[in-house]
Amino acid sequence: MKRVKREEKGGGRAIAPASGKLGVLIPGVGGAVSTTLIAGVHLINKGLAKPVGSLTQMERVRLGKRSRPRWKGIKELVPLAPLTDLVFGGWDIFPDDGHEAAIKAGVLPAEQLKEVREELRSVRPLPAVFDPKFLRNLRGPHVKQGRRKIDLAEALMKEMEEFKTANDLSRLVMVWCGSTEVYQEQKEVHRTIEAFEKGLKENDPDISPSMIYAYAAIRLGIPYVNGAPNTSVEIPALAETARARMVPIAGKDFKTGQTLMKTILAPGLRARMLGVRGWFSTNILGNRDGEVLDDPGSFHAKEVTKSSVLSSILDSGLYPELYNALYHKVRIEYYPPRGDAKEGWDNIDIFGWMGQPMQIKINFLCRDSILAAPVVLDLILFMDLARRAKLKGTQEWLSFYFKAPMARPDLAPMHDLFVQHLKLTNTLRILAGEEVLHHSGLDYYEEAA
Amino acid sequence: MKRVKREEKGGGRAIAPASGKLGVLIPGVGGAVSTTLIAGVHLINKGLAKPVGSLTQMERVRLGKRSRPRWKGIKELVPLAPLTDLVFGGWDIFPDDGHEAAIKAGVLPAEQLKEVREELRSVRPLPAVFDPKFLRNLRGPHVKQGRRKIDLAEALMKEMEEFKTANDLSRLVMVWCGSTEVYQEQKEVHRTIEAFEKGLKENDPDISPSMIYAYAAIRLGIPYVNGAPNTSVEIPALAETARARMVPIAGKDFKTGQTLMKTILAPGLRARMLGVRGWFSTNILGNRDGEVLDDPGSFHAKEVTKSSVLSSILDSGLYPELYNALYHKVRIEYYPPRGDAKEGWDNIDIFGWMGQPMQIKINFLCRDSILAAPVVLDLILFMDLARRAKLKGTQEWLSFYFKAPMARPDLAPMHDLFVQHLKLTNTLRILAGEEVLHHSGLDYYEEAA
Amino acid sequence: MKRVKREEKGGGRAIAPASGKLGVLIPGVGGAVSTTLIAGVHLINKGLAKPVGSLTQMERVRLGKRSRPRWKGIKELVPLAPLTDLVFGGWDIFPDDGHEAAIKAGVLPAEQLKEVREELRSVRPLPAVFDPKFLRNLRGPHVKQGRRKIDLAEALMKEMEEFKTANDLSRLVMVWCGSTEVYQEQKEVHRTIEAFEKGLKENDPDISPSMIYAYAAIRLGIPYVNGAPNTSVEIPALAETARARMVPIAGKDFKTGQTLMKTILAPGLRARMLGVRGWFSTNILGNRDGEVLDDPGSFHAKEVTKSSVLSSILDSGLYPELYNALYHKVRIEYYPPRGDAKEGWDNIDIFGWMGQPMQIKINFLCRDSILAAPVVLDLILFMDLARRAKLKGTQEWLSFYFKAPMARPDLAPMHDLFVQHLKLTNTLRILAGEEVLHHSGLDYYEEAA
Amino acid sequence: MKRVKREEKGGGRAIAPASGKLGVLIPGVGGAVSTTLIAGVHLINKGLAKPVGSLTQMERVRLGKRSRPRWKGIKELVPLAPLTDLVFGGWDIFPDDGHEAAIKAGVLPAEQLKEVREELRSVRPLPAVFDPKFLRNLRGPHVKQGRRKIDLAEALMKEMEEFKTANDLSRLVMVWCGSTEVYQEQKEVHRTIEAFEKGLKENDPDISPSMIYAYAAIRLGIPYVNGAPNTSVEIPALAETARARMVPIAGKDFKTGQTLMKTILAPGLRARMLGVRGWFSTNILGNRDGEVLDDPGSFHAKEVTKSSVLSSILDSGLYPELYNALYHKVRIEYYPPRGDAKEGWDNIDIFGWMGQPMQIKINFLCRDSILAAPVVLDLILFMDLARRAKLKGTQEWLSFYFKAPMARPDLAPMHDLFVQHLKLTNTLRILAGEEVLHHSGLDYYEEAA
Repeated sequence: MKRVKREEKGGGRAIAPASGKLGVLIPGVGGAVSTTLIAGVHLINKGLAKPVGSLTQMERVRLGKRSRPRWKGIKELVPLAPLTDLVFGGWDIFPDDGHEAAIKAGVLPAEQLKEVREELRSVRPLPAVFDPKFLRNLRGPHVKQGRRKIDLAEALMKEMEEFKTANDLSRLVMVWCGSTEVYQEQKEVHRTIEAFEKGLKENDPDISPSMIYAYAAIRLGIPYVNGAPNTSVEIPALAETARARMVPIAGKDFKTGQTLMKTILAPGLRARMLGVRGWFSTNILGNRDGEVLDDPGSFHAKEVTKSSVLSSILDSGLYPELYNALYHKVRIEYYPPRGDAKEGWDNIDIFGWMGQPMQIKINFLCRDSILAAPVVLDLILFMDLARRAKLKGTQEWLSFYFKAPMARPDLAPMHDLFVQHLKLTNTLRILAGEEVLHHSGLDYYEEAA
Repeated sequence: MKRVKREEKGGGRAIAPASGKLGVLIPGVGGAVSTTLIAGVHLINKGLAKPVGSLTQMERVRLGKRSRPRWKGIKELVPLAPLTDLVFGGWDIFPDDGHEAAIKAGVLPAEQLKEVREELRSVRPLPAVFDPKFLRNLRGPHVKQGRRKIDLAEALMKEMEEFKTANDLSRLVMVWCGSTEVYQEQKEVHRTIEAFEKGLKENDPDISPSMIYAYAAIRLGIPYVNGAPNTSVEIPALAETARARMVPIAGKDFKTGQTLMKTILAPGLRARMLGVRGWFSTNILGNRDGEVLDDPGSFHAKEVTKSSVLSSILDSGLYPELYNALYHKVRIEYYPPRGDAKEGWDNIDIFGWMGQPMQIKINFLCRDSILAAPVVLDLILFMDLARRAKLKGTQEWLSFYFKAPMARPDLAPMHDLFVQHLKLTNTLRILAGEEVLHHSGLDYYEEAA
Repeated sequence: MKRVKREEKGGGRAIAPASGKLGVLIPGVGGAVSTTLIAGVHLINKGLAKPVGSLTQMERVRLGKRSRPRWKGIKELVPLAPLTDLVFGGWDIFPDDGHEAAIKAGVLPAEQLKEVREELRSVRPLPAVFDPKFLRNLRGPHVKQGRRKIDLAEALMKEMEEFKTANDLSRLVMVWCGSTEVYQEQKEVHRTIEAFEKGLKENDPDISPSMIYAYAAIRLGIPYVNGAPNTSVEIPALAETARARMVPIAGKDFKTGQTLMKTILAPGLRARMLGVRGWFSTNILGNRDGEVLDDPGSFHAKEVTKSSVLSSILDSGLYPELYNALYHKVRIEYYPPRGDAKEGWDNIDIFGWMGQPMQIKINFLCRDSILAAPVVLDLILFMDLARRAKLKGTQEWLSFYFKAPMARPDLAPMHDLFVQHLKLTNTLRILAGEEVLHHSGLDYYEEAA
Repeated sequence: MKRVKREEKGGGRAIAPASGKLGVLIPGVGGAVSTTLIAGVHLINKGLAKPVGSLTQMERVRLGKRSRPRWKGIKELVPLAPLTDLVFGGWDIFPDDGHEAAIKAGVLPAEQLKEVREELRSVRPLPAVFDPKFLRNLRGPHVKQGRRKIDLAEALMKEMEEFKTANDLSRLVMVWCGSTEVYQEQKEVHRTIEAFEKGLKENDPDISPSMIYAYAAIRLGIPYVNGAPNTSVEIPALAETARARMVPIAGKDFKTGQTLMKTILAPGLRARMLGVRGWFSTNILGNRDGEVLDDPGSFHAKEVTKSSVLSSILDSGLYPELYNALYHKVRIEYYPPRGDAKEGWDNIDIFGWMGQPMQIKINFLCRDSILAAPVVLDLILFMDLARRAKLKGTQEWLSFYFKAPMARPDLAPMHDLFVQHLKLTNTLRILAGEEVLHHSGLDYYEEAA
């Protein structure tokens, strides 16, 4: 606590400057989210679009008292890599270059993609680590060969170093934007780094491709973000190694459509002490994501991250009278006519004073990649910042971006979007040596007295 | 700042104990909100219902660190009047006793009302101060006569003191639960207490009934809450007198259905830096409220409080690229088939990464009185606390409960429900001598290092 | 055609009068639909309610020209049994009497049920024919024992005759209101009456309880209605026997919530030649029905009847350019907070001029038993009429009431609600010797010439 | 009646062939509906799009018995002008050519418009008859000058004949696609042609621009269609003249979004004898239409045509118990973020068996011009057919296309979409000498006996 106190008084952290280029390595670089991100960054750099949805680029935080506020953009508050320093690369099971992939994804209109065609074309995916056990509804031709899993990991590391040299990069960040792997329980092989490395050598079937990527990144000291619900970097074998080696890690599962809405709405219902009897959520979506999630194994992984959200916010341990009876059901339905767009429908059965029932229905016509792309951008920049600020292991202050935020094992994760947002911005204030915000403000009415 | 610091370290405020009975005086005591509140309090006291929706009765706040949390109910944290000490009275333009009025309101089912029939019957409204200039769609027979407005104010004061004596009360609180008055600009007569008292004597047409009630309350040192959008206690003549006389005041317009939803959702969109192009809100409602709001004058008062919410949260000064073009339209439609229930429909046009559009539709089947009753209860108890804790004038820490929260004239009101909630609970922590919460928490990850 | 011509000119059919009491035998007499029907009929007979939703009781059909119309109630147009002549009985796997069952069903409010308590109490179900192979999520204690299926059929026949005698009835009708059985393909044993009766004797596992009831009814010359999606009376063994023995049969699956809406909306889209790319339907429901349909086998039976509706109306054979790509998905979700109420949500992706896309969303907060009860009533009365009018076998003119209407094997069933309605009313006109209606009406503009 | 009988037996009408080109004259030719229609016709003629939404081009009607059906396209059944024979022209208050106007309308995407740029460019509007009294929220520079209204009418007639000669046309049809004029009661001047012509000469203020156009068309024997809610061709002065001169007329107000939905849904509720307590409809739209309808005068005209729909279908005279209490409210809201798209939200409060309430909500994300364009196309072709088939005056068989269908003064208009559709197709059957369809079909089950 003493440390925080000192920081509140000013000073801030010693953070290495963001000099040189930053390489961004993406497993799933040919997917809809990745190509939407990459196209967007180049459009922004050309002055053709605004980085809507990105806190690092757009948010201005209040510093100082409400009566004499100073407003500062996040990128002025802490030293972040500028967008013009980003260089994108990665792996994919399809060999299409970034432009072909973006056209197939069908997220951004042709007019926009035309403006950054050359930049997108230069993104040529390396063959991906792939295992049909973990991804059953998709097959791609562009796959890395290797006798043992350790060989695959080493091939990745080699490619990463080559990418760094070839592009003259000073730092790297890796973000998993691949498909959702089949749900997996943690096993013995995931417990320690020794067991894990033994498993890599012996081709243990419980080591998934996403773990191999995470392992390779951590071994090279590269921050790793898990954007899918995969059981991955949170296994002790990797999480503890990351901490020991001072490597920032974060996850998991980017918070986009319906779950985003839940972590906005549920805290509001709780703040007002309204009871909730039922919450039924269905999603219709028509893209590759929908196809993958049509596999019950992959769906289950998603279901787990989506479900924990409500039980954490609408805490029946704390409020049995309000949330004991909560029936929460989540469905994801593959529905091709929706294309890349997505639609969520929520029905929420609440009750208020004297137990009287009320209902809320939410219909969200959203677009997954449009919501995810700026999340990925912020995570790239913040993870690079974390590395330079020597924040090690799990970056819980980035919970804001995740459906199932990772936290210290003995702490319950925070799902409330507004708690997450305050945690994020107050952490930035601390890093910058500014006073934290707690909105108490009784003094405005007493000072003058 | 020093004062707060000291409080953060422990100790808390000297607060007079809540001994003796607390009288609750309600203009509009025969309305749906009032009778739902009163019936509910008696049902709770009999153990027949839970106080769902009330923070004072149900919320438990975290004290101390997340790793060693202490959870405490608000009513254990600060000394509040127990529900069994509340005695209800007030004025209405209809002479129905509380039971008849509750039956007509049609909010709570007959079975519940039956259980507290006698308690409700004992609530007999006094004749109300009424002025058809300020309420054009309602007429009631139970109206106070008086040559001048000052005579009406004095009659109210006399009734309040009689009520206190007759019921052996130690303290009083007044809450306006009457109808929405016709919109009114602030005039010269509202500026100083001298001008205002002169106006009372000369029957100035710009002094509304709700101002007369507020004046009477403040004169007697009774905390006053404005639950409607009326221009009322916030006029300088009254607000400054309240501050000078150490009387807590708060308002205005209870935050219930659609606006509640807006102050939940809009902060979420802003937190994610999503742009908003349009927000269309329509409401259908069928009760007396709907009838009153069918008068464009009354509707305009409501429209003003409802509209400021979005422009404050989605601040186009701070974020012109995101909110400059926001088109906000609010409609309230009288629709008798809906009865006392209410229904909101919102369409929100947002945009994200690369300006791509998305839509959110919200259909809220809510019940106004069910949402408002616990708000009134909390305000009664917190205003009584404020009086005993010597918090004077505008109670901005109670913004949580209002559509158009009153604040120090030079401070912008806070509409974000989550900021409001943190402000409320941190104020309670300060009053109790506990450390405030700011969710920063980087230390959890560094202490252990 | 000649026969119709003669009828158009007047005269009508020779129909035996509806003299004496009509017994109504219901498998599933203790269910929500049955008890809602029975309570309702008694409430109507006591003048305490209106038969809303019932065509036989409320509809008035136009006879003659639009310029000189005669309007006649259906029950004045053809000789139907009066409601006061109905006597209810039946079977159920739970022994609760009609009043207990109605309370548990929770459809009608306690106040209404109180008024017909005695009438409901007198409905005491006989033990039901039950087979866990066909109903996997429900168990009840009140089950008929029998060594062979033929023994069960004979026990049913004996009970039916006893019921008739005991209540001094002149005629009987049977309506299946039981749960949805597991989906079943037609097999050899269903093809002829000989194979079927052999199967009854040999306990063929493909003979379901609902077939045993239908067989018993037809053997006794009693009209039979199938209200569920069960493969039942439409099997050739039973359908042909019914036709040969002059017994009216009808089915299947009462058309209530979401499918009703589909057969209203889809004909409208087709009439306007609008294309449809996708139709996603989900239902949430919380009663016993929902529990049964949580069994994939029972759901599949429902899915089949629900799906055929759209492909029949939005005929891709006739309109490949409009309906070839139609993706239709139906989901039923058990969601206990909804109780007996039900909620459908439909998303419809249509396209119009130049292929431009549009969307329709429908949210139907409906109540299954409230919609089904008057359907059952009409079917009882019309089937009794059919018997007296010597209409034999499949009553296709009653398609209006069914999700999957039975028709002559070589004719495609008609799903369009408006075609069904015209078919129903024109059939009644024919029976009554009135001219059929075809809305052509050019003559109104030429006669006067 | 005899005539119809004969026709039912075969033969059909003597209809002049559709030889030569057909000129289409459109007041409001530069509007969104007109340009969407014209662009579409050219795209279809080039094989680049399908005429989705057009019955004349796509519908196939059944002829003969269901067991031996013959299916025939409408354009094969009756002699219609081919799309390649249409030549478009008209008037507008803006001078933009068809291509500029289509771009501004923003209905069809740029890619589609590009393909027919030259064809659109050749549509150059003539200056329009304009009167600010009847259109208060729009001003355009391209306006016809004339001292007296009769002079304007004669100028129109001259232009029409020049257009016919210049384009070598054999026939003409006029369709009003202009804006909604301010609501107007019928007056003395509208009663007879003599009064009307006197009014034209004396500049009677109650003669609106749309009446001048209609008058000019009828004088030249040109069929006239009223696509807006204007009081126009239905005034006796014009309607009787049309009838006397054998000129087909039709109207009024194209049935597109929300009202289309009403005439689909309401007949379904009535067919099932479900009661309706309330129907609340709101619309948000952002184009020129929305701007015009922001004028209460224009809105009132719309409100009137929109409102009659429900009271006609849900006939409280016939069914007081079901529809007596129906509260119907319609709102149209100008909401610029919606652009040319339109969105309807309906809440319908229904009740069923035992008076139990249910709710239906419909959210229609539609596009006005996309729905209207094929309606205009069908009306052009059918009105030309009517002229050649010598059908004179009001064409009630085209009610299908209108919100407020015109009918013989002593006959109630038919609003039920399905009755309208049967009327339309049976009229075509009669014209073609085919048997009408009445869906009775009992014979299928008796012939075989």
